[in-house]
Amino acid sequence: MKTGRIEEDFIGKMEIPIDALYGIYTARTVRNLSFSEKKLFQYPRYIHALAYVKKAAALANFEAGLLPIQIKEAIAWACDEILDNRYHESFVIDVLHGGGGIGTNMNINEVIANLANQKLGGERGTYHPVHQNEHVNLSQSTSDVCHTANRIAVILSFQSLRLQLEMCIQVMNELSEKFDHVETMSRTCLQDAMKVRIGESFRSYAAMLERRLHLLSVSVDYLHQINLGGTVIGSGVGAPQHYREVVVQKLCEVSNLPLRHRENLFDAAQHIDDLAAVSKELHLLASCLIKLAKDLRLRSSGPEGGFGEIVLPAVQAGSSFSRERLILLSLKH
Amino acid sequence: MKTGRIEEDFIGKMEIPIDALYGIYTARTVRNLSFSEKKLFQYPRYIHALAYVKKAAALANFEAGLLPIQIKEAIAWACDEILDNRYHESFVIDVLHGGGGIGTNMNINEVIANLANQKLGGERGTYHPVHQNEHVNLSQSTSDVCHTANRIAVILSFQSLRLQLEMCIQVMNELSEKFDHVETMSRTCLQDAMKVRIGESFRSYAAMLERRLHLLSVSVDYLHQINLGGTVIGSGVGAPQHYREVVVQKLCEVSNLPLRHRENLFDAAQHIDDLAAVSKELHLLASCLIKLAKDLRLRSSGPEGGFGEIVLPAVQAGSSFSRERLILLSLKH
Amino acid sequence: MKTGRIEEDFIGKMEIPIDALYGIYTARTVRNLSFSEKKLFQYPRYIHALAYVKKAAALANFEAGLLPIQIKEAIAWACDEILDNRYHESFVIDVLHGGGGIGTNMNINEVIANLANQKLGGERGTYHPVHQNEHVNLSQSTSDVCHTANRIAVILSFQSLRLQLEMCIQVMNELSEKFDHVETMSRTCLQDAMKVRIGESFRSYAAMLERRLHLLSVSVDYLHQINLGGTVIGSGVGAPQHYREVVVQKLCEVSNLPLRHRENLFDAAQHIDDLAAVSKELHLLASCLIKLAKDLRLRSSGPEGGFGEIVLPAVQAGSSFSRERLILLSLKH
Amino acid sequence: MKTGRIEEDFIGKMEIPIDALYGIYTARTVRNLSFSEKKLFQYPRYIHALAYVKKAAALANFEAGLLPIQIKEAIAWACDEILDNRYHESFVIDVLHGGGGIGTNMNINEVIANLANQKLGGERGTYHPVHQNEHVNLSQSTSDVCHTANRIAVILSFQSLRLQLEMCIQVMNELSEKFDHVETMSRTCLQDAMKVRIGESFRSYAAMLERRLHLLSVSVDYLHQINLGGTVIGSGVGAPQHYREVVVQKLCEVSNLPLRHRENLFDAAQHIDDLAAVSKELHLLASCLIKLAKDLRLRSSGPEGGFGEIVLPAVQAGSSFSRERLILLSLKH
Repeated sequence: MKTGRIEEDFIGKMEIPIDALYGIYTARTVRNLSFSEKKLFQYPRYIHALAYVKKAAALANFEAGLLPIQIKEAIAWACDEILDNRYHESFVIDVLHGGGGIGTNMNINEVIANLANQKLGGERGTYHPVHQNEHVNLSQSTSDVCHTANRIAVILSFQSLRLQLEMCIQVMNELSEKFDHVETMSRTCLQDAMKVRIGESFRSYAAMLERRLHLLSVSVDYLHQINLGGTVIGSGVGAPQHYREVVVQKLCEVSNLPLRHRENLFDAAQHIDDLAAVSKELHLLASCLIKLAKDLRLRSSGPEGGFGEIVLPAVQAGSSFSRERLILLSLKH
Repeated sequence: MKTGRIEEDFIGKMEIPIDALYGIYTARTVRNLSFSEKKLFQYPRYIHALAYVKKAAALANFEAGLLPIQIKEAIAWACDEILDNRYHESFVIDVLHGGGGIGTNMNINEVIANLANQKLGGERGTYHPVHQNEHVNLSQSTSDVCHTANRIAVILSFQSLRLQLEMCIQVMNELSEKFDHVETMSRTCLQDAMKVRIGESFRSYAAMLERRLHLLSVSVDYLHQINLGGTVIGSGVGAPQHYREVVVQKLCEVSNLPLRHRENLFDAAQHIDDLAAVSKELHLLASCLIKLAKDLRLRSSGPEGGFGEIVLPAVQAGSSFSRERLILLSLKH
Repeated sequence: MKTGRIEEDFIGKMEIPIDALYGIYTARTVRNLSFSEKKLFQYPRYIHALAYVKKAAALANFEAGLLPIQIKEAIAWACDEILDNRYHESFVIDVLHGGGGIGTNMNINEVIANLANQKLGGERGTYHPVHQNEHVNLSQSTSDVCHTANRIAVILSFQSLRLQLEMCIQVMNELSEKFDHVETMSRTCLQDAMKVRIGESFRSYAAMLERRLHLLSVSVDYLHQINLGGTVIGSGVGAPQHYREVVVQKLCEVSNLPLRHRENLFDAAQHIDDLAAVSKELHLLASCLIKLAKDLRLRSSGPEGGFGEIVLPAVQAGSSFSRERLILLSLKH
Repeated sequence: MKTGRIEEDFIGKMEIPIDALYGIYTARTVRNLSFSEKKLFQYPRYIHALAYVKKAAALANFEAGLLPIQIKEAIAWACDEILDNRYHESFVIDVLHGGGGIGTNMNINEVIANLANQKLGGERGTYHPVHQNEHVNLSQSTSDVCHTANRIAVILSFQSLRLQLEMCIQVMNELSEKFDHVETMSRTCLQDAMKVRIGESFRSYAAMLERRLHLLSVSVDYLHQINLGGTVIGSGVGAPQHYREVVVQKLCEVSNLPLRHRENLFDAAQHIDDLAAVSKELHLLASCLIKLAKDLRLRSSGPEGGFGEIVLPAVQAGSSFSRERLILLSLKH
């Protein structure tokens, strides 16, 4: 009984599970560089972003006369299959593999090649007629593929975070209306100070969240500047001029996102401060939500030996949580 | 067709999967407090540690005359099953659920109760004759259970990390012998300085790792002081005197670890600086390993336009990794 | 010989140096809460910002009919003296005193009161006719004074940082022109990759710095929203309506900055995420500059045993620094 | 009127203040590399540590036959003067100058040379008969001088911190006796739990501080292993054998500290994880003290709208601080 197929690279031969959509490069990376227990299949938005990039590249390569139509069609079909969430279990690479992203890029190249060849009547593991490097990765490098896909994945994630934050702001505003007439004590350094209306404090939470959401959104906006077409170091070496002129437009179409080229592609290949800025904004948002949650915890302390000015309805035996708190907690992660 | 069973708590009724070993408390926590995508089943050593605690408590409760023998036996059997890695998929709680650890404690209480009742001929979801709180959690609180189990889990993890570090130190020492005669250039501020033997630099890596291993080990030693028997706040309220006198001894026996009571159990219930100290030692170890890996990367830079004084054998197409580097990298995670 | 004067508060009497412009509140805070070895006099921009606030408050209080003209004039004169950098040595408070800012606010209140009374013919330590609380601090609280002055101080500091960054960007652009024709090797993971022009890499540094400067500037813009008039908790309690309507306009005039009220003053009294955002942008800028400096260090490593592709002219015996590197380093601090 | 003297190095000439004990190297470093506003004279223990090192080196050089007696005597006398705190204002270098420590080492070399020459009847700025490099720095490098002095400075600082912590522990124990009979409420997640005696909670603070003090002390113990004699990279190049054999013994004598050579001097020249470990222990201690202070703040919140279970006596108008809290706060810094 046949359980595996043999693939070969310049290091030597290796047995791959007979039905695997990935190939030897992915398999070696999994074996050599799996440290973090975070697998690519746990990040479906990143997989989608990679599929958008590969589809856009195929369309641009075709338009630049570099790919025959049937190979372009097969690659595009394979990308759509992946975007349909059918093959996520094939993305087995450690997402923090530390190998410069080559494993990630090769994982999707191999899966697309095997899917495309199957569509064209070929077998898995043959990489013919569609080749993972010569066709799927044509005019690209790991550098511009991963840099671009990372940013798209963050943009996609932000779209859902934005909805949650807007709901949270709305809840805070509703609570500020509902309890606007209730007076309580404000405190400085936790010592009793002057009276304040509960409505005022919830409105101030809403104002804080609106500000953070706005600035997070500014930092995410920057990520729409991408470097696909810059290849390894930003010079675009290996990517023909026509391809480079159209690939971002193709990517806008397949992803439905308003992307554009970063002005300096050498800068883009080297500097990731735009991603770091989003990370810092998320950290600041989390700090604000933690402050809010701690306020609620303190203000609901007691009932006898604490502040006892807010009651959070119980949603679980042995503890007390409000709908609001749950929303907040869920945003932190 | 019956797909679920109904369980009830003071919040109301809830349907639980018919075959689930966990119960309603776990299910509510999963629904209310799943934020981190890190599930308890991903941490088998923590599950083992919790099973040790529950078994030790059952033995101590029996000895203190608080549990009938057949219930003690059933609980101990269930713990052994868990220690045999048979039911890890039942530990579905978010390990960072944020609910003070109650979810974690209840997850194991419910799994043990259901297993024990099954052993005694009962059905899942009945919690009779073995009750998750009255028997499995008897004389315990979430506070002392989780504080104790956390520390045991870290001790168990350190045992395997120690082996890896010792192997890494040995490799460094072997390399220092092997290349002791090779002279290269040392540098200050990356400017050429005086000659140094390669052996010296590998020996210095070994010395650094030995020092960090020793101090990490000192910090882990502290974790052997536990607070099982202190219950919620350290006073031992709810845990009879006899139980408190024997439970740590029982825990030593079932876990085969030299544990002892922390001197001040109020301190233990409140302060986690002993765990934080281990975390800081791990962070420092990681910094040292990163420094070592960066040195290797720099010293193997080139071949033409870099330092080029060390060659790391390739283990993967398109990149180069040595056995040593892989060992190092694997330790970082 | 008289060496001190006696001042008194409800805690008791205390001897103050005979010539001190500060008074008993400042002296107690210095004695009780001096931990950080960072004194207010080391932060002249913060002193200026506090003087702007006090002058604006005096003008607004006068316009609101709360201060007689000669007291308003004396306070304004004292603020101008401070803005003239004549009395910085009187700001002896620990700038991180931890007492909620009261010490900082009282330090400037006492200095202004003593200066103003001196101008009006009185003696230091009498607080008559100008009183530190009843006149200098009129309609204000520590909360709105310090929150406002903090932000102004950061805005003033940014004005000089902006100039330095712009000069640094210009240097990078000049270098990119000057060395545009020089080809060198680019590297991926420190392994030789393809050739690149030196000009490209300096241009990419300039692009990075322009981006960070722009986003730092966005975060500083937010600080122009202040809460002077909100007093302790944002309600403006203790500050009459007319005063609150004009005080920000007065502050714009005396500081020559385009300030405005934050929309929600309760929010402003509680949340400092706008300051934290600037801090995070500075951290990110520093990371980028460190990356740039490390690149230069690596690329000038050698001369024989390193990369040796850039020579940094020596400015000091025993080491080598370029004008560019010095500029960069000075920005980091 | 003569206001400066001219010194010269290979970069060129420079005017030095006529009375300065430092020389051209220090002056250049101050001009080129002053970023942090933290000057060496603010760190008297570091100055002492450097003086110990220089004195020990002179004694060892004399014993190894490398220095004539009158130069040894003059250097030793100059070191004693510095240890007598007479010339701290001469240590003008930026303590974080970033130039690899050369500025720090040269600052003390120049001050000692000028003092020693003055003692021998010479003038400042002549560096004759005692030369800053050929005599004061003989058999040393910046690397082993600064690494050694850093560690001694931390050991000296710890001696005074230890006393403060021991006093703080004693206060906690006294408070636990004094209030042992008072019952209050303990809380879990800030919700009312069971009663606890105030004495128990103060005893738990004492236990926490004892533990941290012990482990901090373990980390400081490691710093007694120093690398004086290892010179630049650990090989001891430039330092004769006899000198290297006696220099640490001399340093023990002049500093009255039980120092010894680190086993691997190459390791010592490269790795500073022993210092980082002390830093991490201090950070952990600070976290514990902050926790303690926050507990006191929370437990004294109120008086009406808070916990109100502890009253902290006022030491300042407008706020409340206890002797204990002040002790704690002062330890944090």
